Parts: sequence; C-alpha cells; structure tokens
Amino acid sequence: MPRRRHMPALLAAGGLASRAAAETPAQTHDHGQERIAFLIYPGFTALDVFGPHNMLAGLMPRRLDLVAATAEPVLTDTGFRVLPTATFAEIEPGLDVLCVPGGTAGTLAAMADAPTIGFLRAQGAAARYVTAVCTGSLLLGAAGLLRGHRATSHWMTRELLPIFGAEPVDARVVESGNRITGGGVTAGIDFGLRLVGKFRSEAWAQAVQLVAEYAPEPPFDAGTPERAPPPVTAWMREMFAPFLVDARAAAEAAMQRLPNP
Amino acid sequence: MPRRRHMPALLAAGGLASRAAAETPAQTHDHGQERIAFLIYPGFTALDVFGPHNMLAGLMPRRLDLVAATAEPVLTDTGFRVLPTATFAEIEPGLDVLCVPGGTAGTLAAMADAPTIGFLRAQGAAARYVTAVCTGSLLLGAAGLLRGHRATSHWMTRELLPIFGAEPVDARVVESGNRITGGGVTAGIDFGLRLVGKFRSEAWAQAVQLVAEYAPEPPFDAGTPERAPPPVTAWMREMFAPFLVDARAAAEAAMQRLPNP
Repeated sequence: MPRRRHMPALLAAGGLASRAAAETPAQTHDHGQERIAFLIYPGFTALDVFGPHNMLAGLMPRRLDLVAATAEPVLTDTGFRVLPTATFAEIEPGLDVLCVPGGTAGTLAAMADAPTIGFLRAQGAAARYVTAVCTGSLLLGAAGLLRGHRATSHWMTRELLPIFGAEPVDARVVESGNRITGGGVTAGIDFGLRLVGKFRSEAWAQAVQLVAEYAPEPPFDAGTPERAPPPVTAWMREMFAPFLVDARAAAEAAMQRLPNP
Repeated sequence: MPRRRHMPALLAAGGLASRAAAETPAQTHDHGQERIAFLIYPGFTALDVFGPHNMLAGLMPRRLDLVAATAEPVLTDTGFRVLPTATFAEIEPGLDVLCVPGGTAGTLAAMADAPTIGFLRAQGAAARYVTAVCTGSLLLGAAGLLRGHRATSHWMTRELLPIFGAEPVDARVVESGNRITGGGVTAGIDFGLRLVGKFRSEAWAQAVQLVAEYAPEPPFDAGTPERAPPPVTAWMREMFAPFLVDARAAAEAAMQRLPNP
C-alpha cells in the first residue's frame, strides 16, 4: 500500500504547517518530522485511540500510524473494524510517541500475546515518549515499561499498577520521565493536547483545541468515582469486579513471564 | 457478512443490560432495541463519530452502524480507514438515531453527492432523532432537514446555517424538535451522553460517563473563539477563510438542487 502523509483535513485545509513556523515563536522542534504510532489489537477501546489521534494529527507529523500484528482489519470494542496503517515489522525503532490504548478482555489477551509484548519492549526501549491511555497502562506494565515509574490508568484498574513495579497516581495525566499515562478513555484527549504543546508550543496546542472546539460541557458530573452519585459508582464497581479479578491474574502472570530487570 | 450485536466491552463485561432494568427506575424505553446509524464518507472527521459512538454504545443498542454508500473502507480525515458495518441499501427506514459527522473538503463533496443526499432525505424523514456533529449540520442542511429548525455547527460554519433555512444558535448542543445538533468535533461526546440520558435515565448516562472517565481537564482554555487567545482565534479564522468561502458556495448550490419544501 502506498504511504502518504495524511493531514487532518481541518488543519491541512488552511495550511497550518506552512504558516506556523513564522507565527509560533515558541516552536522548538522540526514540525512534521515526528513518527507516532498507536498500537491497535482486537477489542481495543476505539475512543482511547481516536481522541488523542485527532489531537496529535494536529502536529501534522511525518507518520501517524495505527500498528497491529498483521495488516488484517482490527475489531474495536464498539463493534467496527479499522485497517492498520502498518504492521509490527514495518515500524522502525525510535518512534517519537508510542501510545497504547486500553480495553477489557482484549487488553488482557494482548498482555499474554508474545508478539505484542515483544513489539512493546523493543519499541518502548527506543521511543522518545512511551505512553498509554486507560487500561493501556496494563499493557505497558506487562511489557516491563512501568518499573520504577509513577503512572495512572482507568480509575478501576489503577490499584493494579504496583504489580508492575509502578507507583499509582490519582491524576488524569501522569508524566514520569518519558512515560506519560492517561486515565480512562476520554483522558486521552487531554493527554493528546498536552503532547501537542510539548512538541510545538502552547499556541499551536490552543489552535488544535479551538479547531476541535474542545470546551467540554458534560451534561452530568459523574466522570470520577468520587463525583458520580454513590449508587452509580457502586453499581459500576460491582459490575467490573469480575474483570478486575481477571486483570489482576493477567498482570501477575505477565510479570512471571518477564525477564528480571 | 454476518451481523451480531456488539457491546462495548467495558459495559458488556459486567452485564449492564441485564441489571439495569431493575436498578434504574427512570428507564422508560425498551433498552437494547434501538437502531443507530452514523453516516461515514471519505474525509469524515473520525472523532465526530467515535466520541458519540462510544457513549451510544453504552445503550447497548440493537444496531450501532457505520453506514456508507458501499462496503469499501472509508478514509477518515486523519488518514486511517474504517470498514462500514452497513451500506445505504441495508438500512431500513425508522432509525432511532441518524447521526452525521463533519469534515472539511469531504463534507462539501458529500453535500453534492446525490446518493448521500438521497439517503439522508429518506432516513431523515423517518428517524426518531435526526442529528449531526460539527460541520455534519451542513450535510443535514443540504438534505433540507434543518428548514425551520434551530441548530448549531462548528463555530466556524455556524453562520452558514441560515442558507438552509435554519436559525443558528451559539451553543454546544441544540435540540429543536427531533433535530439535535452539536458544535465542533468534541461536542459529540456531550451530545452522545445527553442522548443516553434521553433513551435510558440519568443514572444510566452517569454510569456511561463514569466508565469513560469523562471528567475533562483541558490543559488550556482555548476551546471557543471567545476563550482562545485572540491571536489564536484570528489565526484559525484566517486559515479557514478559504474553506468558509467554499462551504458557502456548496451550501448555496445544495439549496438550488433541493425541491421546494
């Protein structure tokens, strides 16, 4: 398949790339040179990827890949299929951003998949930023990439992070060295915008935010276990209790398989 | 392709569907019976779809389709391809939700595409809710579906709504009869959560919000033209000025083609 540089239509339409060098003095990186890859695997949570993907597309990076083990379409958690833009073998080490989305049963399966863990270990050792959104942090952990780091995860699975040698932090986005982890699902948008600011400038990130009209107005205030009405939180905790048991077992098994650091 | 009922993994994992009937007294609709379809077309803005798609998947509807003219993969604005789950011919009229995402050049092309407009007119006449996110409202307008309605759009294109006989409203989500329109890109998440509340109950929507950890913390306050720093807003207005000219011409041409109401 021929590769070409894709730009987000809304930004590319007006030529953000050509104007920005002159107009954003804080820019310190060569824009358009980054290589960014999101891992995708069966059952990944689509919004974990496509929130930050929209924001990072605003960098107009050189490559913005969805990478999977093979070129076959990958089924998302909400029942549609996405075509990878690259396979594991096609990604040269030295990514600017490696990002791992979460999921539920699919994520636990990926934690036990040797090619996936091998890909994450190899790419994670050489990437400029090693990142995850939601339960994607369990996959980073299973690849040994969170040892000695502070990290977050979906609020439901944050308590599993110590299994991987990581220190859990109750925050929406956590930076620790070159590791950046986001909380559940929609935290990926905030994570993505922060990265845009890091790679370019505050003005560039604000432009991306403005184009995405990201001035959220949630109709309810229930986005964290503390803020949701207690019966709703209790309901979700009970509903996911079996998943948490499986996730803990998957985390412990993954650590058994890892070589000692 | 065999069809099956897809559930969002995070909700399906714990059996939300089976428990909720007993536990959410405000529920008034048969859950799991809805048919929801997002139009997808070349160049559509992925996050316009996959934000609300994540939220609406929490309804565990009977069908949650991505519908396109043909079964071929559809290229998104950020350069990856998605497989439709249904074609125009496969969608029976009487959808519970018809939702149209935005984009830039791709959206203007779709406004001039007779099969797309024909699909929207036929489905729009019979759907329970006729909805759009971002510049998707231009497509609804081009199909004659906003005549006499209050509506919103991406902040950049809101001023075009009168061309379609609609009254522009400066709001993130606007309801007018059975029309619901959202502002730019990320407004689709707020729109989706509202719809979940409408179809089920506030508690159900709060559960979906909690699972998506939707407690946004934008790192900058630049999500509207009024809140962004004036140079950033001016920069984006200038960048999109040519698109706005094209969009106005596309809107006027579309209205010329429509039969009189």
